[in-house]
Amino acid sequence: MQDRSADIGFARLDLSRGSRTGFPETIYCAGKTKEQLLTILQKFEAEKIAVMGTHCSPEQFEFVRNAGVSAAYDPVSRIISASPEAHPRLPGSLAVCTGGTADLPVAEEAVRTAEFFGAEVTRFYDVGIAGLHRLLSRIEDIRQADVIIALAGMEGALPGVIAGLVSAPVIAVPTSVGYGASLQGLTPLLTMLSSCAEGISVVNIDNGFGAAVQACRILKLMEKNK
Amino acid sequence: MQDRSADIGFARLDLSRGSRTGFPETIYCAGKTKEQLLTILQKFEAEKIAVMGTHCSPEQFEFVRNAGVSAAYDPVSRIISASPEAHPRLPGSLAVCTGGTADLPVAEEAVRTAEFFGAEVTRFYDVGIAGLHRLLSRIEDIRQADVIIALAGMEGALPGVIAGLVSAPVIAVPTSVGYGASLQGLTPLLTMLSSCAEGISVVNIDNGFGAAVQACRILKLMEKNK
Amino acid sequence: MQDRSADIGFARLDLSRGSRTGFPETIYCAGKTKEQLLTILQKFEAEKIAVMGTHCSPEQFEFVRNAGVSAAYDPVSRIISASPEAHPRLPGSLAVCTGGTADLPVAEEAVRTAEFFGAEVTRFYDVGIAGLHRLLSRIEDIRQADVIIALAGMEGALPGVIAGLVSAPVIAVPTSVGYGASLQGLTPLLTMLSSCAEGISVVNIDNGFGAAVQACRILKLMEKNK
Amino acid sequence: MQDRSADIGFARLDLSRGSRTGFPETIYCAGKTKEQLLTILQKFEAEKIAVMGTHCSPEQFEFVRNAGVSAAYDPVSRIISASPEAHPRLPGSLAVCTGGTADLPVAEEAVRTAEFFGAEVTRFYDVGIAGLHRLLSRIEDIRQADVIIALAGMEGALPGVIAGLVSAPVIAVPTSVGYGASLQGLTPLLTMLSSCAEGISVVNIDNGFGAAVQACRILKLMEKNK
Amino acid sequence: MQDRSADIGFARLDLSRGSRTGFPETIYCAGKTKEQLLTILQKFEAEKIAVMGTHCSPEQFEFVRNAGVSAAYDPVSRIISASPEAHPRLPGSLAVCTGGTADLPVAEEAVRTAEFFGAEVTRFYDVGIAGLHRLLSRIEDIRQADVIIALAGMEGALPGVIAGLVSAPVIAVPTSVGYGASLQGLTPLLTMLSSCAEGISVVNIDNGFGAAVQACRILKLMEKNK
Amino acid sequence: MQDRSADIGFARLDLSRGSRTGFPETIYCAGKTKEQLLTILQKFEAEKIAVMGTHCSPEQFEFVRNAGVSAAYDPVSRIISASPEAHPRLPGSLAVCTGGTADLPVAEEAVRTAEFFGAEVTRFYDVGIAGLHRLLSRIEDIRQADVIIALAGMEGALPGVIAGLVSAPVIAVPTSVGYGASLQGLTPLLTMLSSCAEGISVVNIDNGFGAAVQACRILKLMEKNK
Amino acid sequence: MQDRSADIGFARLDLSRGSRTGFPETIYCAGKTKEQLLTILQKFEAEKIAVMGTHCSPEQFEFVRNAGVSAAYDPVSRIISASPEAHPRLPGSLAVCTGGTADLPVAEEAVRTAEFFGAEVTRFYDVGIAGLHRLLSRIEDIRQADVIIALAGMEGALPGVIAGLVSAPVIAVPTSVGYGASLQGLTPLLTMLSSCAEGISVVNIDNGFGAAVQACRILKLMEKNK
Amino acid sequence: MQDRSADIGFARLDLSRGSRTGFPETIYCAGKTKEQLLTILQKFEAEKIAVMGTHCSPEQFEFVRNAGVSAAYDPVSRIISASPEAHPRLPGSLAVCTGGTADLPVAEEAVRTAEFFGAEVTRFYDVGIAGLHRLLSRIEDIRQADVIIALAGMEGALPGVIAGLVSAPVIAVPTSVGYGASLQGLTPLLTMLSSCAEGISVVNIDNGFGAAVQACRILKLMEKNK
Repeated sequence: MQDRSADIGFARLDLSRGSRTGFPETIYCAGKTKEQLLTILQKFEAEKIAVMGTHCSPEQFEFVRNAGVSAAYDPVSRIISASPEAHPRLPGSLAVCTGGTADLPVAEEAVRTAEFFGAEVTRFYDVGIAGLHRLLSRIEDIRQADVIIALAGMEGALPGVIAGLVSAPVIAVPTSVGYGASLQGLTPLLTMLSSCAEGISVVNIDNGFGAAVQACRILKLMEKNK
Repeated sequence: MQDRSADIGFARLDLSRGSRTGFPETIYCAGKTKEQLLTILQKFEAEKIAVMGTHCSPEQFEFVRNAGVSAAYDPVSRIISASPEAHPRLPGSLAVCTGGTADLPVAEEAVRTAEFFGAEVTRFYDVGIAGLHRLLSRIEDIRQADVIIALAGMEGALPGVIAGLVSAPVIAVPTSVGYGASLQGLTPLLTMLSSCAEGISVVNIDNGFGAAVQACRILKLMEKNK
Repeated sequence: MQDRSADIGFARLDLSRGSRTGFPETIYCAGKTKEQLLTILQKFEAEKIAVMGTHCSPEQFEFVRNAGVSAAYDPVSRIISASPEAHPRLPGSLAVCTGGTADLPVAEEAVRTAEFFGAEVTRFYDVGIAGLHRLLSRIEDIRQADVIIALAGMEGALPGVIAGLVSAPVIAVPTSVGYGASLQGLTPLLTMLSSCAEGISVVNIDNGFGAAVQACRILKLMEKNK
Repeated sequence: MQDRSADIGFARLDLSRGSRTGFPETIYCAGKTKEQLLTILQKFEAEKIAVMGTHCSPEQFEFVRNAGVSAAYDPVSRIISASPEAHPRLPGSLAVCTGGTADLPVAEEAVRTAEFFGAEVTRFYDVGIAGLHRLLSRIEDIRQADVIIALAGMEGALPGVIAGLVSAPVIAVPTSVGYGASLQGLTPLLTMLSSCAEGISVVNIDNGFGAAVQACRILKLMEKNK
Repeated sequence: MQDRSADIGFARLDLSRGSRTGFPETIYCAGKTKEQLLTILQKFEAEKIAVMGTHCSPEQFEFVRNAGVSAAYDPVSRIISASPEAHPRLPGSLAVCTGGTADLPVAEEAVRTAEFFGAEVTRFYDVGIAGLHRLLSRIEDIRQADVIIALAGMEGALPGVIAGLVSAPVIAVPTSVGYGASLQGLTPLLTMLSSCAEGISVVNIDNGFGAAVQACRILKLMEKNK
Repeated sequence: MQDRSADIGFARLDLSRGSRTGFPETIYCAGKTKEQLLTILQKFEAEKIAVMGTHCSPEQFEFVRNAGVSAAYDPVSRIISASPEAHPRLPGSLAVCTGGTADLPVAEEAVRTAEFFGAEVTRFYDVGIAGLHRLLSRIEDIRQADVIIALAGMEGALPGVIAGLVSAPVIAVPTSVGYGASLQGLTPLLTMLSSCAEGISVVNIDNGFGAAVQACRILKLMEKNK
Repeated sequence: MQDRSADIGFARLDLSRGSRTGFPETIYCAGKTKEQLLTILQKFEAEKIAVMGTHCSPEQFEFVRNAGVSAAYDPVSRIISASPEAHPRLPGSLAVCTGGTADLPVAEEAVRTAEFFGAEVTRFYDVGIAGLHRLLSRIEDIRQADVIIALAGMEGALPGVIAGLVSAPVIAVPTSVGYGASLQGLTPLLTMLSSCAEGISVVNIDNGFGAAVQACRILKLMEKNK
Repeated sequence: MQDRSADIGFARLDLSRGSRTGFPETIYCAGKTKEQLLTILQKFEAEKIAVMGTHCSPEQFEFVRNAGVSAAYDPVSRIISASPEAHPRLPGSLAVCTGGTADLPVAEEAVRTAEFFGAEVTRFYDVGIAGLHRLLSRIEDIRQADVIIALAGMEGALPGVIAGLVSAPVIAVPTSVGYGASLQGLTPLLTMLSSCAEGISVVNIDNGFGAAVQACRILKLMEKNK
């Protein structure tokens, strides 16, 4: 194994993920102190490695910006991107569909991540199944996408319904939207896993980031036979 | 309280439920010995009270029939009805919809119970959402019903989708069909409770009987303003 | 499908639910920003469509009122109703029963919703089963109702007891009142689903709104045979 | 500590529990081989110590009887009592109430244990709350008891209702009767623990034995002030 | 049923519990507004009925005191007692044992309630099983009690160990003390229910109050044979 | 919607899934009677539509074969394929990796399904992480695949470890292999969803079939840019 | 990594674990077919590598013995050992303590495994805490051990009590002995993890094998400073 | 039993744990008032007994320091040590490994505790399995340790991977790092318990302290054969 990593005491930075996986480096900002995040971003800046971070609080962003790190920040998705020049364009296209408005922050995490990784993304928001015509009126457009990310909270039925209507792979993202029996997202998670539709696989609750990376890995396959 | 009951040692039979609730007496056969079931049915026979039992095993039925009780038995729904002359006709109509073929025993428990109570029932089987056109091609007929019972296992999304397409009250029945993350019916149960659609209320897992009684109580209201 | 919807970017408003289901449009305010809620309410105002919202925080209400939206707000039920002229009167009557005083906010959500939808509602509060005479002294009045909503937290036994004493359909609402083994409402939810009483169906924890809509769908059936 | 025990290899028999706690020795037969059970019973027989065993299978009983142990067996409660001459009479009286007929085996475990320990027991079976008049018609008799054991499966509401109607301590026993949302007895267990009624404490699911011992410890207190 | 209750709109006060159960009236203060609590306490004051409330916040207490209600308040147990003259003395004695110091608020809820109900209480605090000699050095004193309340969080083993060492009934109270696998008290709850010791029954997590009432019901039995 | 379906009473067969999704029709055999399965297979045979079924018991297979249906059966994966001539070849290649030998039936379900759908599959069995060199010695071969299905029971760590070592999308399949804390597959399911590795999405417990369909949908994308 | 493994199709055998970890190779027999087990054992026999297998059914053993494999079998622990000449003697001593007789099969799995690995083991069976004198009368002998394995089902309190009485490390094994609230061993598992005693770590439910290996790894450390 | 304890009202201090277990006294500060903590520390100071406390808030520390107690405090691990002169040196060495940076507070709790108890500790931070080369590049150093503590949140796979690569005993610590399906640490807890690797035992979620004490008990064994 010739992979490089940098030991900065509290962390060992993976400096070769880009060459190993073909995608930029990413950081999970939650649970890191502001000082730790700063040190990490400065290290990548020095190495000229593009990097983005999820679950970044406004306080964390302000701290690293004030310390001179050059980074962009989107308060809805809570994504910080320390090297805004995006990744080379990926082939194909990605659709991101949500059940309701409250799923928007997680959806934007998916959209921004995929765009940072180089994907072309179209948003289809608030097409939940309680009013099926909202979905059906847009389904032809959704069918144009090569990969689909579908997010839903509460009962989480949207990804299964979409998967039955398209032939593209669907990445399902349960969200913690809802209350009571939706169990902070466990219910839509279980729903999506139990779906009797084909062509659906699932990521963690509220994990828009993970869905986007998976979608980009899939899109990247299309390069192969170009 | 002027309600009558009969003490037969291991049980106190409710002999006035018919007059109190307007519906026939019912028995939960599981957990009762064959001898206990026989004693109960004979008592009702003697009192000339119509009665049906759910969760009746073929062995239980054979035992009571051999002992001379006059009763009908449906092996799919596992319903025994000791007085097959049905209840007076209820107004309105009931639709019973299932997501898949494996939900059939629970669906038949609902259908047979509702028919025993006097309802007019139409079956809409295997209209699950994995192939949405199966549901959409029948939705106009389903909309004719005054009350809808919708059953589904696995991810349990059918009742919520139907509730968003109709204006009738939907009684949702989660079934234990599925495996793994469907958790013996807990997942469709939680799904149905978390549905963002309006006009849906839920009964216990595999409780086709309970859904039918609730549907009949609702249909009976329509008598009032005749 | 000829249903109309309005795309406002983060949401697709359902503009034809009224004509499709016979009831006013409703909004789930939690998880929406103040600005999003404002945009939605203004859109409905412009379309002259009556609308109510649940889970509306005082801050959300203040924001939309200050922005000129004409709406009423009830801080107990947290319901905002942007078009206070109520729906046409529904036939029949609805009883709303609670186990204890702490269930009051959820009960009021049910009451206010049903009244907005046009139902005639009577309150029966604090008739929980720990002191059964409180329920028994009122049961004759409760029996007059065509539909009953019964709410309870803690052990959640009230709806089952009522369902055994009446012939009307009972919509059960578990509440998150309690601590420890009541598991934020999961225990009364499971209790109500497991009830051996007949004529009971259940909605999500604290979902007074959903119970009310279901009750109104049922009451609306009584119009049919007028 | 001067307590005596006998080491028989796979087990250490407690030979002084009788003098320490005032009650006969008891054995949990499940998980023991027939040979182990025989050895234990023979040891107690040799020590002339009265002993009873719960969860004893018919096969276990047959084996030890064939091996010459003198013991009685009740197939409903699955209790073996190797020394049928009962314990000295306890003061006061015990009521054992069940919600339904299917609770009978657990109820009989409680009754037989309490009788073996010397208590006077009255049975009140099938007084569940789905038909409240069955309970109310017997409540005056139940109030005569000094201690009450109340068993219920499904939603498990009976003990709480009784506790609100009497002043005696109520020992609640959830049973595994039911299906789906009753979760093999977990739901009635949680219900009983969450009861807003006073004067109720709970034992394990299907633990009629434990309830009886607790009841007998309580009854024994009445001896003190004689 | 000749029980009296007072309808004050949001609640129906049980005015005859004292004569029915032999104990003072009690209130669960959580989930009630300050105004509701005041109204209730004033009503009982006017009826000259002794009353105590649990889960009373300092803010609630201050409000009702400022409004002129004469009541005592203990900030550790959070008990308000609006009529401090205690109930007539109960026979026998009660021991309250805790596993650790952090169980103290729940233990004091039990102690204060039992004292308000007239019981003589001895505290045995911090006798948890991690250092068994702390328990064994006090066990002879604990054995003098007629009823024992044992509280423990974390693994919750204390009540079972005590029950094996005494002949009095043990009321077990799981507390929410602990973290991680103790699951906010669910683990000690399950532990206590699963105890293989005899003579133990369990109340809800952190329910010192319920344990005390059950203990007092038991102690009251000793009056009978005086 | 121009989709065709055939109503055969207990089921509505989807006759246009092939043209809609580009893949053969599939059946979930569990929960269907032998007669129902036969009717379905005969219908597809008559329509000359290729079909395969999962969870097919040996008894079901024997019954339909004896009735004259021409179908192949693999007892390890329990897959019946009624039209063994496979689908047109898909581009790219699929690796199927298992943690241990006991995962083999689920792995074979994935392999057989993917092969039926036209994929080229390589097996990498028993490369679990308890002996990491088993995985590391094969990782270069695994990296050749365009899509990877990774199965594991017990702690379920394999897919996450692989996802960190490759750039292809990984479809993770938790299996019910294990005991105790692996909770019939729930633990590996949660593990895979919580993985901090990127490029992993998850299907239901033991759902080798679903993983294969998702993998084939992904592989099919590679056709696009040929 | 110079580790050797043998690819036998359905499995990759780890042939260097002995030299890597200092302990014999072990097999988890459950989920393997008889033929697979035979192939594995024959491979190790050919390599002259000592091996033992857990969860071996009598049928599996009979099959491999009939096929000529030379192996011993213990039906209580269900351990097969294909090379009965034990491992070199480990330093120190191990105590294996059980709460009750029903824990014996798991305890024997621990004892037999540790003995196969070369440890000196003493059994302390049935010293559960319901009768504390049974434990206290043996505690001085238990204190002589360098490592202690403590097993318990039901409430699982034994390991914590022992850990508070000794200075040796305690490996806790929850067993699935019990019913109802013991949740097939989950309750003792959670109890042991939540123990407030120090010096305790936990393995999976019924995992006597894992506890023994961990104990032997610890004992092996004592060799170092000889 | 000649163990000494001091009764200070709300607690019984164990004054002989040092001589009984060979390690310093420790306190769980959470759930204790500032005044209680002060009293305890002053008592130990007066008895000249070394003591450390976990879960100590900055406010608690400030209070006891201002009251004149001489104690050190580490804000990352939240450990207070009232007698900083450490315990006599333990033989051998301990490695503490973390999956990610967010595990640092729990890791430091383990490190600081072990150092206070006299162990030599080496930190291996951020060697999680998502980038396996980070672990593999350090594994030779980790192999030098006599005991290993491995911490991980999210999917919790690190300890199992390490246990398969070393021959030392591994103490696994699940952390509450993660979101959604990691269930506040329950998922890594279950993962570690289900690990198919050998030589791993587990402590409570976030219990760095417990892991350190167990590690020190093990290291202390190495003294024996010096």
